[in-house]
Amino acid sequence: IERGDSEGIREQMEGLFAADITSLLIELDTDQAKYLVTQLETTTGAEILADLDPGERRDFLKAFTSQEISRYVNIFDSDDAVDLLNEQPIQVREEVIALLEDREQARFILDLLHYDEDVAGGLMQKELVKANVNWTVNECIEELRKQAEDVGRVYAVYVIDDNGILLGLLSLKKIVLAHKNTKIQSLYDKDVIFVETYRPAEEVAELMQKYDLDTLPVVNVQGKLLGRITIDDVIDVITEQASSDTMAMAGITGEVEEDDTILQQTKARLPWLLVGMMGGILAAKFIGFFEGDLKVVPAMAAFIPIIGSTGGNVGIQTSSLVLQSLADKSGLDSGLGYRLLRMLAIALINGLIISSIVFGFNLLIGNEIQLALVVSAALMSVVFLASFMGTVTPIALEKIGINPAVASGPFITTANDLIGYAVYFGLAHLLLDL
Amino acid sequence: IERGDSEGIREQMEGLFAADITSLLIELDTDQAKYLVTQLETTTGAEILADLDPGERRDFLKAFTSQEISRYVNIFDSDDAVDLLNEQPIQVREEVIALLEDREQARFILDLLHYDEDVAGGLMQKELVKANVNWTVNECIEELRKQAEDVGRVYAVYVIDDNGILLGLLSLKKIVLAHKNTKIQSLYDKDVIFVETYRPAEEVAELMQKYDLDTLPVVNVQGKLLGRITIDDVIDVITEQASSDTMAMAGITGEVEEDDTILQQTKARLPWLLVGMMGGILAAKFIGFFEGDLKVVPAMAAFIPIIGSTGGNVGIQTSSLVLQSLADKSGLDSGLGYRLLRMLAIALINGLIISSIVFGFNLLIGNEIQLALVVSAALMSVVFLASFMGTVTPIALEKIGINPAVASGPFITTANDLIGYAVYFGLAHLLLDL
Repeated sequence: IERGDSEGIREQMEGLFAADITSLLIELDTDQAKYLVTQLETTTGAEILADLDPGERRDFLKAFTSQEISRYVNIFDSDDAVDLLNEQPIQVREEVIALLEDREQARFILDLLHYDEDVAGGLMQKELVKANVNWTVNECIEELRKQAEDVGRVYAVYVIDDNGILLGLLSLKKIVLAHKNTKIQSLYDKDVIFVETYRPAEEVAELMQKYDLDTLPVVNVQGKLLGRITIDDVIDVITEQASSDTMAMAGITGEVEEDDTILQQTKARLPWLLVGMMGGILAAKFIGFFEGDLKVVPAMAAFIPIIGSTGGNVGIQTSSLVLQSLADKSGLDSGLGYRLLRMLAIALINGLIISSIVFGFNLLIGNEIQLALVVSAALMSVVFLASFMGTVTPIALEKIGINPAVASGPFITTANDLIGYAVYFGLAHLLLDL
Repeated sequence: IERGDSEGIREQMEGLFAADITSLLIELDTDQAKYLVTQLETTTGAEILADLDPGERRDFLKAFTSQEISRYVNIFDSDDAVDLLNEQPIQVREEVIALLEDREQARFILDLLHYDEDVAGGLMQKELVKANVNWTVNECIEELRKQAEDVGRVYAVYVIDDNGILLGLLSLKKIVLAHKNTKIQSLYDKDVIFVETYRPAEEVAELMQKYDLDTLPVVNVQGKLLGRITIDDVIDVITEQASSDTMAMAGITGEVEEDDTILQQTKARLPWLLVGMMGGILAAKFIGFFEGDLKVVPAMAAFIPIIGSTGGNVGIQTSSLVLQSLADKSGLDSGLGYRLLRMLAIALINGLIISSIVFGFNLLIGNEIQLALVVSAALMSVVFLASFMGTVTPIALEKIGINPAVASGPFITTANDLIGYAVYFGLAHLLLDL
């Protein structure tokens, strides 16, 4: 289908949604993909470009001239336009903005480029419908008609005063049901939730989830309406947040992905591997002190792995549960003391079961009862210590303003391991009369 | 403020949003909270009950009679009503449904109770506005007026034929801008995306994200319109999905939370701790075979931890990256071979750096060069093996239909540990002439 037949392509693609064509595109090489996109209507092409992953889009657009890019950016929503331009080299960015036919769009974009990506200002779009509080419903509908083309999804009309200060909102449902000559003044909803431009993206996501909002108006410090954030942008924030927490748990920093360059991946991964390595070296040095003991009871060495892995597993489980309830702000905030008490009760049960089984195993394979006692006592202590660390660390990290998700990561696991070995060899040295 | 002054409470609470009162409520004991809620208007009370976490709501509603519950359920959205009723004992559930004043609501609820929670049917609500394709815009507005009270947010009107088959949709924006006598036939959008009731919740979430939808109509196998799913319910699905993946990584099964009972938590955690323990026992048995070697070179024992932890860390990093790109369906699907090649390249870099440092450390503390070589060679192999396992396992699990997130969990980590020890002791036995 690929070479040449532009009529055929356009016909075939007409029945498809832009998102479907995007999925198709990924299987083509850059030249074929560019050919396909340029054959489509500009609006469809723009939707496809807006859909693409940032990394893929950056690579794909290298095949386009600034002139070609500007044709699509011209009809983008302003927030998506800014995202796209931020991925481009400065020169391309400036050229595209200069080439934009829609001068209002250019002004919108220049406004939005000021804001960081991770604050409310960086999430908002300038496209919205606003109505003066002194208008009638009819005037409001006229304004809507004028804006209809630019504003993709309307949800609601924002009501402002003569100075552009946000007063409230008027849902489309109310507009449909109202009489044409009713004053907006008597109709609009004054209970409006809004954010200032500098609020962090996570706070925006929380607000919109808490109050079940489709859109959230953004104002400056004087309360002047500047833009709106729509729910689909916030879904992206939520998904990214969850993914970056998972990555932090796995010992990966930054927003690296599997298809990033080898250098980027190494930069994201090596630091944590080195943390683990340092832990391993410390463990080696520490166990080295007990070389004499190991010479006498070499069977001791066999239980080094189970001490380390049990501490690690219990620590990760505990901190993940604490992290989950820290993230879930609507959850009951039982105090630290109560939390610890419950954690320790669970540790008692798990610890007793595990150390009894291991005790039985030790007797079964004919190890001496003293060694069996030492191993099980060490396991018990390790379960308790890991539960304690797993509860306290995320809470402490959150208190001092560090992302608590790192508490399930390599750093804490390594610390737990070291504590475990210390307990094990310490107990062994004392109890085995070495 | 608490005891008695109902007027004062109502006045104070009037200015607040329901979600804010919910946050307040959590700090009160059950009796105070019930008193507060019953003093509020029924609609506010209903919003608060809809907001509460399932577990907290179940406990809180124990203080209410079926009669009292039915007053609130009467004005719930049907999907929220079903969620609430599913948490109640069967007797309460039946009583509440029988007591409902709004008989249409009772019918809606009985319809929805059929569906599992995790399919499209279990997410949908029956409240929606539909219009016959032969109507005019004016008739459509009349219908909207009738339904306005029941349907919280409208977004769009669904267009159906005489048999109730879904044909398309009409956005509120189009209704506002159209002339009253226009036929819907000439106005509505035929490109409508819908799901069947039996589709899994994750598929619904993917669809709504892919096509940026606010609502998704749900149909039966004949294409008859049965309900709609709104974006806020899907945000919950996305958040739960992310959280259950994190929990799977941490070795916790099911939807357990920190404030669940000790028994529930033990049930969710113990199985994975036992997996880790079994791994530890296997490792102990395995290392036991080399007791003779350890007697000769006790320094070998000191490096057991670093072998285990490096394998574990590399494995988790690798599988998390692969998991991320498996979950991100829009990502480029480079074949398994290319993936492995990249992973191994990264393993080469990380492995070389780590094993060189450890080699240096060994010489520095005066260990023999043979032992240093064995440790570094084992580290190198472990990094490669863990990268390989971390890449292949999630892909294989996904192929056979198991949640690949468990690939970052205790099971794989344990397997990686065991392989690591095998390589280490095997190499040592061969190279140290034991």
